[in-house]
Amino acid sequence: MFCLRTPTDPAWAKQAVGDLDAVLVDHAHCEMKAATNALSLVVRHSSDLGLVRALTDLAREELDHFRRVIAFLERRGLSLGAPPVDAYAAELRRAMGALPQADVPPLVDRLLVGALIEARSCERFKLLLDALPADTSVELRVFYEELFACEARHYRTYVDLATQAQAGHWRGKGAARDIDSIVQVRLAHLADAEGAIVRSLTERDRRATVHG
Amino acid sequence: MFCLRTPTDPAWAKQAVGDLDAVLVDHAHCEMKAATNALSLVVRHSSDLGLVRALTDLAREELDHFRRVIAFLERRGLSLGAPPVDAYAAELRRAMGALPQADVPPLVDRLLVGALIEARSCERFKLLLDALPADTSVELRVFYEELFACEARHYRTYVDLATQAQAGHWRGKGAARDIDSIVQVRLAHLADAEGAIVRSLTERDRRATVHG
Repeated sequence: MFCLRTPTDPAWAKQAVGDLDAVLVDHAHCEMKAATNALSLVVRHSSDLGLVRALTDLAREELDHFRRVIAFLERRGLSLGAPPVDAYAAELRRAMGALPQADVPPLVDRLLVGALIEARSCERFKLLLDALPADTSVELRVFYEELFACEARHYRTYVDLATQAQAGHWRGKGAARDIDSIVQVRLAHLADAEGAIVRSLTERDRRATVHG
Repeated sequence: MFCLRTPTDPAWAKQAVGDLDAVLVDHAHCEMKAATNALSLVVRHSSDLGLVRALTDLAREELDHFRRVIAFLERRGLSLGAPPVDAYAAELRRAMGALPQADVPPLVDRLLVGALIEARSCERFKLLLDALPADTSVELRVFYEELFACEARHYRTYVDLATQAQAGHWRGKGAARDIDSIVQVRLAHLADAEGAIVRSLTERDRRATVHG
């Protein structure tokens, strides 16, 4: 799906639907992290109003999803608690730091990591949707369907923003080069790393989480 | 207005309408800081779902305002740039650290600081509204009217959340005390400090900013 190199192990969906409560709690944290991560990019790159607009809209959507996950938690009598250590995100950040040298600003890499997280979430929500037991509430099923579509759109937004940021970087240097291909090469490097992280987490971390 | 101890110097509104571009740029940063500050409280206190809900809704409203300020900036051909040092917020945080010892958790103080910032913004938007020149666009006038009402509501939300947080703190200790009065005393201490900060900034910092 999209740029993902490693399809999720089918056992993941089985485990996730077996503990939907845990998935929902983890999902709430993921939505909040997605929102605050987008806003941190807005604050850091506030001179680019196109980026500011796109990422603020994205953050508002993530907060809307967060609120809706919270409503599911409340209906199920669940509490949220402190955000757990997010090994998936931490290892992606490490992979970003280990990328080959290239004339690519850090913003582009951060946006591509955002794209990969959205792509993986999209894949996982589809797997979850297909594995939901027959007695799952219509509300939850509809919610995951919406999320599947949103994450796909967010993936595209992040890749587009990365391409524009790379174009802006080179325009600033007066250089004219093949932007799409450098961004695609960069995304491919990060996708390789993401695939390796997912394989490793599947072996090490058998909890029911969105990205575990 | 509300708990404010020092009314804004009337010269502020004159200076602000004299440089509405600068006020709008500063205002955009204020909305973003209000949103990210509310979300940082959500992340830190995520076990309290009532607080989580209220502050997430508040952050979504701040982001909506941020987006609308950005649209005004774009229409005026302005850019945003990096957030400036916020002396008002920094001194309020310092004042929070210098409060008298009391059986009040840090969350309550942070919520009360939030309340004060909203109260001051509310006062300033009213002053701005009254001082806008006759040729101001209807859109901008309506926007400031809406903001005036929103900031008043946010002030009330923050005070209510502080009261509930204090009640939760004492319930946890099995104590029954006069919650309203301790929260009001704490708010009065902070309001004294806020008034002194505003007086000092008015003398030192003559830029057209929302809180300067």
